[in-house]
Amino acid sequence: MTALWVIIACGLLAILYGIWATMSVMKSDAGSAKMQEIAAAVREGAQAYLKRQYTTIGLVGIVIFVIVGYLLGWLVGIGFLVGAVLSGVAGFIGMNVSVRANVRTAQAAISSLAGGLDIAFKAGAITGMLVAGLALLGVAVYYAVLTGPLGLAPNSRIVVDALVALGFGASLISIFARLGGGIFTKGADVGGDLVGKVEAGIPEDDPRNPATIADNVGDNVGDCAGMAADLFETYAVTAVATMVLAAIFFAGQPILSSMMIYPLAIGAVCIITSIIGTFFVKLGANQSIMGALYKGLIATGVLSLVGIAIVTHLMLGFGTELKTGGGVTFTSTALFICGIVGLAVTGLIIWITEYYTGTNFRPVKSIAEASVTGHGTNVIQGLAISMESTALPALVIIAGILLTYGMAGLFGIAIATTTMLALAGMIVALDAFGPVTDNAGGIAEMAGLPKEVRKSTDALDAVGNTTKAVTKGYAIGSAGLGALVLFAAYNEDLKYFIASKTPYFIGVAPDFSLTNPYVVVGLLFGGLLPYLFGAMGMTAVGRAASSIVEEVRRQFREKPGIMKGTDKPDYGKAVDLLTKAAIKEMIIPSLLPVLSPIVVYFAIYFIAGGGAAGKSAGFSAVGAMLLGVIVTGLFVAISMTSGGGAWDNAKKYIEDGHFGGKGSEAHKAAVTGDTVGDPYKDTAGPAVNPMIKITNIVALLLLAILAH
Amino acid sequence: MTALWVIIACGLLAILYGIWATMSVMKSDAGSAKMQEIAAAVREGAQAYLKRQYTTIGLVGIVIFVIVGYLLGWLVGIGFLVGAVLSGVAGFIGMNVSVRANVRTAQAAISSLAGGLDIAFKAGAITGMLVAGLALLGVAVYYAVLTGPLGLAPNSRIVVDALVALGFGASLISIFARLGGGIFTKGADVGGDLVGKVEAGIPEDDPRNPATIADNVGDNVGDCAGMAADLFETYAVTAVATMVLAAIFFAGQPILSSMMIYPLAIGAVCIITSIIGTFFVKLGANQSIMGALYKGLIATGVLSLVGIAIVTHLMLGFGTELKTGGGVTFTSTALFICGIVGLAVTGLIIWITEYYTGTNFRPVKSIAEASVTGHGTNVIQGLAISMESTALPALVIIAGILLTYGMAGLFGIAIATTTMLALAGMIVALDAFGPVTDNAGGIAEMAGLPKEVRKSTDALDAVGNTTKAVTKGYAIGSAGLGALVLFAAYNEDLKYFIASKTPYFIGVAPDFSLTNPYVVVGLLFGGLLPYLFGAMGMTAVGRAASSIVEEVRRQFREKPGIMKGTDKPDYGKAVDLLTKAAIKEMIIPSLLPVLSPIVVYFAIYFIAGGGAAGKSAGFSAVGAMLLGVIVTGLFVAISMTSGGGAWDNAKKYIEDGHFGGKGSEAHKAAVTGDTVGDPYKDTAGPAVNPMIKITNIVALLLLAILAH
Repeated sequence: MTALWVIIACGLLAILYGIWATMSVMKSDAGSAKMQEIAAAVREGAQAYLKRQYTTIGLVGIVIFVIVGYLLGWLVGIGFLVGAVLSGVAGFIGMNVSVRANVRTAQAAISSLAGGLDIAFKAGAITGMLVAGLALLGVAVYYAVLTGPLGLAPNSRIVVDALVALGFGASLISIFARLGGGIFTKGADVGGDLVGKVEAGIPEDDPRNPATIADNVGDNVGDCAGMAADLFETYAVTAVATMVLAAIFFAGQPILSSMMIYPLAIGAVCIITSIIGTFFVKLGANQSIMGALYKGLIATGVLSLVGIAIVTHLMLGFGTELKTGGGVTFTSTALFICGIVGLAVTGLIIWITEYYTGTNFRPVKSIAEASVTGHGTNVIQGLAISMESTALPALVIIAGILLTYGMAGLFGIAIATTTMLALAGMIVALDAFGPVTDNAGGIAEMAGLPKEVRKSTDALDAVGNTTKAVTKGYAIGSAGLGALVLFAAYNEDLKYFIASKTPYFIGVAPDFSLTNPYVVVGLLFGGLLPYLFGAMGMTAVGRAASSIVEEVRRQFREKPGIMKGTDKPDYGKAVDLLTKAAIKEMIIPSLLPVLSPIVVYFAIYFIAGGGAAGKSAGFSAVGAMLLGVIVTGLFVAISMTSGGGAWDNAKKYIEDGHFGGKGSEAHKAAVTGDTVGDPYKDTAGPAVNPMIKITNIVALLLLAILAH
Repeated sequence: MTALWVIIACGLLAILYGIWATMSVMKSDAGSAKMQEIAAAVREGAQAYLKRQYTTIGLVGIVIFVIVGYLLGWLVGIGFLVGAVLSGVAGFIGMNVSVRANVRTAQAAISSLAGGLDIAFKAGAITGMLVAGLALLGVAVYYAVLTGPLGLAPNSRIVVDALVALGFGASLISIFARLGGGIFTKGADVGGDLVGKVEAGIPEDDPRNPATIADNVGDNVGDCAGMAADLFETYAVTAVATMVLAAIFFAGQPILSSMMIYPLAIGAVCIITSIIGTFFVKLGANQSIMGALYKGLIATGVLSLVGIAIVTHLMLGFGTELKTGGGVTFTSTALFICGIVGLAVTGLIIWITEYYTGTNFRPVKSIAEASVTGHGTNVIQGLAISMESTALPALVIIAGILLTYGMAGLFGIAIATTTMLALAGMIVALDAFGPVTDNAGGIAEMAGLPKEVRKSTDALDAVGNTTKAVTKGYAIGSAGLGALVLFAAYNEDLKYFIASKTPYFIGVAPDFSLTNPYVVVGLLFGGLLPYLFGAMGMTAVGRAASSIVEEVRRQFREKPGIMKGTDKPDYGKAVDLLTKAAIKEMIIPSLLPVLSPIVVYFAIYFIAGGGAAGKSAGFSAVGAMLLGVIVTGLFVAISMTSGGGAWDNAKKYIEDGHFGGKGSEAHKAAVTGDTVGDPYKDTAGPAVNPMIKITNIVALLLLAILAH
């Protein structure tokens, strides 16, 4: 139990860091009255959106809470609530800091670049630490309560189900936040650009554009709250899945509780190393912002290596022989090496994503070059790069699986994924830094700050684009691996129910062989989900953007004074329109992954003639569906996020004066590519992550419900 | 043996139809001297390209022939040659007819639409019948020779290996023809449009554009020769795989040889029904060209139903109980119903593809509407539609698998796929009709024929666009199902080698369960192949197009008389440039699917520690890779071909006067979408078919080689 208390203390440390950093950010100068007025509009819009979003999710959540509680017992239902509420809290607080840090970053950038970086990064770090800290606390505290005061065995079904439900709660917030936020942000961005930049010929972030506040709101609800919910989910879900595997593999052994807590301990020590890492983020003499951020990341990585070694030594002892119930043996040293592999996978994926989305390398340059021959060739090259960008990350993931499985079986894969996610605090910090700097640039522009300030905020913003892209690569890679761990948990759970002769599972013999046509059908059905889901996301952005286009046109028409600067646009109306659109559009696609496992199970059950044979066929098809979702989902998501990032930076590369520079025909073509990349990288692509995980976790819950 | 003779006679009937139709086409008026001159340029370009392509393939083919012959014996090597040569012949003759029918179609269109339709369709039907006839003859005659004069048992390994090698020969031609033809045609199209329509402001098919002849050549080498090779391959490969399954399932039973010939008999009877169907293609009173073509297709479908019933009755007798060696029992009636399911799947996929690519329905209209707000929104909506368009075909394939497997196990799936492909003659006719009408329009434009003629050829061309899209949907659906049958053959072959204690396979126990990490790794690796391959195809088109852009610019610069009409452009130079580019670009991507199964097998073999365990892991990973290629390949290919078709027709829909019509801003955006759709639907998308199949067939050959 001591270990658990230390873990909880580490979680609390993350919260303390959050409080300290918030106070530090709030203490700094909030700028002129004009700047504060703009920031207030963004803040109010963001709060109004989140309020509406959480109200909707809350309604859905209460229904699911009652269903889960009724079907699986109220301790499990409470697990669901814990996951949902904490995920919501992390996103909510993070975003509230973000919308206050933006104006302060702009103000600090007036005096120095380093000052701007400091505030923006600190704001991002608050979200990051809250994500890691609250996710760890949620899992650890609820586990402590269940196994301590409530006296349940660590591997009792109620504990396992409650933890899975906790993951499901996080998943629910995640899919809604990702999708709703994504639709909001890109509806505003695409719609605002179309009618502002293209039709009216005014620059981005021009205060005369009624959609400009909505655009800034979108950055926060999408990249800050959305990413926070996404990684909170992956963190919680991976920790839970690893614990479930430990519960099954080490059942009845004295080491059981250590093995169940081991993944949490890795998370705990990495919170400490992440916090230390944040203090390494300091602008060096070369004024490289990216360099400063990488210093923090590398420090965290190296310290984590040491930290995990210490944790392994204290909890398991190096060289200890471990043996799973299934007869797989490995040493604790192998588990430590699996952790190193997890760190290496993180590093490689970040490096590859930067290669595909950074302006210094072939991919982005090739898109910029293709822009010279027109819109069409820009898009063709962008699509080619987006497809190509999937190969190396997939190979890294394949190598990671082969290495860790070879060393410690399925549990090795789980530990590698856990380690990968243990860095989430630092990585979310890098991502949540993006919307703050983006907003700071917008505020500087709207408030008419001097050109040099805008140059500083632009430099911060450009780095923000890269970190956002890089984090997305990490989020998808970890989601894919996390989902594999969930799939393993599904399979082990199924075996457990069959072996323990749970009534519903008597006579069930799932056949996951690829030669079973139900498996082929499941793979194909799973494979189509990310495509259909992606299509829905893209269409939703299109619809939201058109509604904004029409609204802005209406305002320009009815208030001719806006363009002359004598009349003020109605920013609130645009925010309100998008809020409604985003909430409406997020419901149906979100239901797709929630309902699919259930529908597939029962459809195949009936087609295969019901009874034990029908159940076997159903479970096989659902299992295959889970892998099908991962297989196509991984490629769809990586191609969308990397491709979108590359398009964005190809535009920036041209704006930096290459191939004709700003205003040239090549630039116009690059703007088209950037517009296409927007819903790719910020709506459909990232929303595939939670959809992969939610399909898997619903399948796990389905097993629990059928067993009950 | 009688049945085999009848089957061979049906194959010959297809050839006779081809000769008769060719004479009939050649007899018609070849138009004015000017028209003939243009047609001659297209013809010479096409022949020069094909000559170079076949020379390159020939060199690769000879190397592979020697390897296959040396490793597996010369009877197997000859099988490879038969498949490669016949596939090449079908494409070569078909294209040669096509480049002669184009000018005759233009001439006939002067007097009547019906006349133009008659010639164009007949030309397409020649390619169609040659594909089906030669594929059937190749398999049937070589099988007859091996089991007759050479006295081999129908299910002896040499027969099985020789048939698989025949399929591999067809595959090799197919991947080169698809990819090389695709790069040529879209390089010409995209490059020509960019520099002609966009830069010089001259219309499509304007004789002043030096790339215009290359564009017309491309239609033939891509849509005619490329599609012919693709469906020849699927036809041969599916027939072979079904026969291999029959050889394994019914080994030692008296019904063995009937079961092995049954798929060929289905192909034979459908050649008769396809030939009869061609005579139903007649323009009705409503002047609907699509209606005339559908009349032919529906007649073929209905007659095939009757024909397959007769074949089933004669060869197996209705209601006969059949039992595979593995203990699966079903009746011959069930097999007949599986055939009906195959026909139904064909019909549904055609119907769905038309929905997604036709101008009368929501998807195309939504892209046209999105063009109003700009290039970016056109592309976003097009991508959304392309992703959405995968869902229904996948569901149809899933339903087909579930139905046929439920009725007659794996063999039921194989028979359904065989039936689907038995219609290939008619379907290729519809597709190969496209380039003829496309060329006819080009010739009418270049020869300055009266406006009404251009209207007739445009009407034919518009229908050609739809039939091309629809055939691609069919080609992919059948390729996906065909590959599933191949995967089943891989698995059964592996079981056979293990059971027969073939030295290399002693102790091998492949585990295709999704819970085996090598399977997960195989799925992911297979999944990445279509993405990487697609990226290579798209980039190749981009490069080929830029080389054309530069060449055309050079000609315009050096010969200012071209634009004034006083000087003639050097058409041959553009054709030559593209030929070189296409041949060069097709090599590396083509090697990807050929080498992948081999590399994956040996890589996993070594990683898993060699020996029997290494072999088991290797075979499991390769098997999973085959399914991984199918799973993502199906979605990549459908999304690309349907999406591309939709973009193309959205442009046409605007040109028909909607959303501002030709020359409007919406039209410009739609042209961008069309340009993006070009390599999507005509290069990368369709080339995924042969790549899916070739990966599977190489895996089968790998087994044979390891067993040897």
